[in-house]
Amino acid sequence: MYIDDLPTPALIVEANALEHNLGLMAGLYPGSRLRPHVKAHKCSALAKVQQRFGHTGFTCATPREISGLVRAGIEADFLLANESLDTARLGAIAGSNPTVAVDSDETIHAAHRAGIRNVLIDIFVGLPRCGCEPDDAARLADLARSLKMNVRGVMGYEGHLMMVTPPADKKSQVAAAMETLLACAAKVGGDVVSAGGTGTYREHLESGVSELQAGSYALMDTQYASLGFPFQQAVHVVGTVISRSAGWAVADVGLKALGMDHGNPEVDGYDVWFCSDEHVTFAVKRDAASLPVPAPTVLPRIGENVLVTPAHIDPTMSQHERIYVHREGLVVDEWAIDLRHW
Amino acid sequence: MYIDDLPTPALIVEANALEHNLGLMAGLYPGSRLRPHVKAHKCSALAKVQQRFGHTGFTCATPREISGLVRAGIEADFLLANESLDTARLGAIAGSNPTVAVDSDETIHAAHRAGIRNVLIDIFVGLPRCGCEPDDAARLADLARSLKMNVRGVMGYEGHLMMVTPPADKKSQVAAAMETLLACAAKVGGDVVSAGGTGTYREHLESGVSELQAGSYALMDTQYASLGFPFQQAVHVVGTVISRSAGWAVADVGLKALGMDHGNPEVDGYDVWFCSDEHVTFAVKRDAASLPVPAPTVLPRIGENVLVTPAHIDPTMSQHERIYVHREGLVVDEWAIDLRHW
Repeated sequence: MYIDDLPTPALIVEANALEHNLGLMAGLYPGSRLRPHVKAHKCSALAKVQQRFGHTGFTCATPREISGLVRAGIEADFLLANESLDTARLGAIAGSNPTVAVDSDETIHAAHRAGIRNVLIDIFVGLPRCGCEPDDAARLADLARSLKMNVRGVMGYEGHLMMVTPPADKKSQVAAAMETLLACAAKVGGDVVSAGGTGTYREHLESGVSELQAGSYALMDTQYASLGFPFQQAVHVVGTVISRSAGWAVADVGLKALGMDHGNPEVDGYDVWFCSDEHVTFAVKRDAASLPVPAPTVLPRIGENVLVTPAHIDPTMSQHERIYVHREGLVVDEWAIDLRHW
Repeated sequence: MYIDDLPTPALIVEANALEHNLGLMAGLYPGSRLRPHVKAHKCSALAKVQQRFGHTGFTCATPREISGLVRAGIEADFLLANESLDTARLGAIAGSNPTVAVDSDETIHAAHRAGIRNVLIDIFVGLPRCGCEPDDAARLADLARSLKMNVRGVMGYEGHLMMVTPPADKKSQVAAAMETLLACAAKVGGDVVSAGGTGTYREHLESGVSELQAGSYALMDTQYASLGFPFQQAVHVVGTVISRSAGWAVADVGLKALGMDHGNPEVDGYDVWFCSDEHVTFAVKRDAASLPVPAPTVLPRIGENVLVTPAHIDPTMSQHERIYVHREGLVVDEWAIDLRHW
């Protein structure tokens, strides 16, 4: 079966591109230096491929991501890089001996009550989200240790810096954020300093952290592509053109098949006008023939397929039940997106 | 169990508000005058409630919405208000004798090959999406009849007019769009003229169409609320505050639990800063105490719950496996969101 034979909308991943991306990152961040973030794909089968590239731990955003990986037979050093007060869900994953991010008395006590034994102190490094004030890090570490918990170190996510340009600004701003994190690490103790994402993978080669939490690098999206990284676009959504008029065409890939928080997807070489629940409306680019990379000058016919590239990979993956794996168009496997929901 | 006891993020619907909305619309559009759009909720249990309010037909956006309703034991006059070239999926629903929208030779032939017996000619009335040119409507109807298909009439969705203000402009623009549709209806034949949505429910009381395709009215969202309609906000997502700093708080309702194409959700009386995959960051409103409707002047504590109101209901529902039904906070039922995916 070829990708053009799939019922649409169909989420697909090109295996050669995926392996290129995994190999490139594993070369830079081998083994435990990379802790792949599974929130980017929510797919245990893909996590197993990441294990084959040498990584021994995973970053997770929800307890269900961890329990799903365990259910799929994966043994690893799991990090719940997120705060939780849900002692039932934390208790359900405690048996896999995960490490859990904490940033307050409440989250430490919740983890303790749930039988969690390992924590990282989550530090605010500039993104207004989770993370304690740097001045509070040592106190929280002491509290956790007083409860006989193992404080493995710190984490701090500089999510606000992922898209900073030019590179010199990104480098200096990441360095400043990591200065804060490393100062906390010295006070907190432990040997883990976990940070970063795909957008700052270059900066962390020399930032002093012990591990990178990148996820998007495996599959990519149009937002990260805008940064000119050497990772390839591995995921698309195949759509069928279901309607066409003189001025536009419509494919059956809508906003229920895409993460829309970063805006519209791209459709081949066309201009996307807007998405509806089950549709994307697109048109021939103005001056299509004279662009540096020539674009189609005619619309596809009704019944033809188009490739839609999502703007944000994480919430695109979580909209789908499965992803088809192909090599240059030939479908070779099908993976369940089995780590969705909470 | 109360909604504060639910594991979060938890999608909830307040039954009194839902019934208010269903009763109000059924009063204006009784029985077959309303063809509720199930794409707005993708929940067969909710569709059954709509049946109890007297409606005998449903509008659907995907074949799976129809097959799911049938699987749930619902017998009704089903309309697939969307074009499809997928003869396998169309064939799978043909046994429920649905009516299918067509706007081209290709979609008519696909429906015919799949054993579909009833069609509506879908007319372009101004929204650049599906729908044939009005001049082509009679020819397409003739083609369908030549294949022994029953042409029940026309549909035309004026989605571009849902948010038009002031009301006088909306009224005149809807009237102009429906003039096109009714002219096509006269040429096409049949007794169905299907159009509209929640945003134009007032205009269609006198527009001359035979039925309204509204869906959002049942549950509502912040975008439709901005129009000042008498429908109540029936759906929220319950979140737990998992982190708090001096300037902001973070709840565990992120963009994987929300439709984000209409922008950020609302959080109680707070200012929403941004959403991440599994988080919403919010803060106390500036001048909270002096607003016409006073807003909270302090952030909620870690572990407290907040109610998050989505900006767009349809893609919010499709992110969740289930919805909890409550009356003023007491959970009375749990419904599967069983019509998701394709």
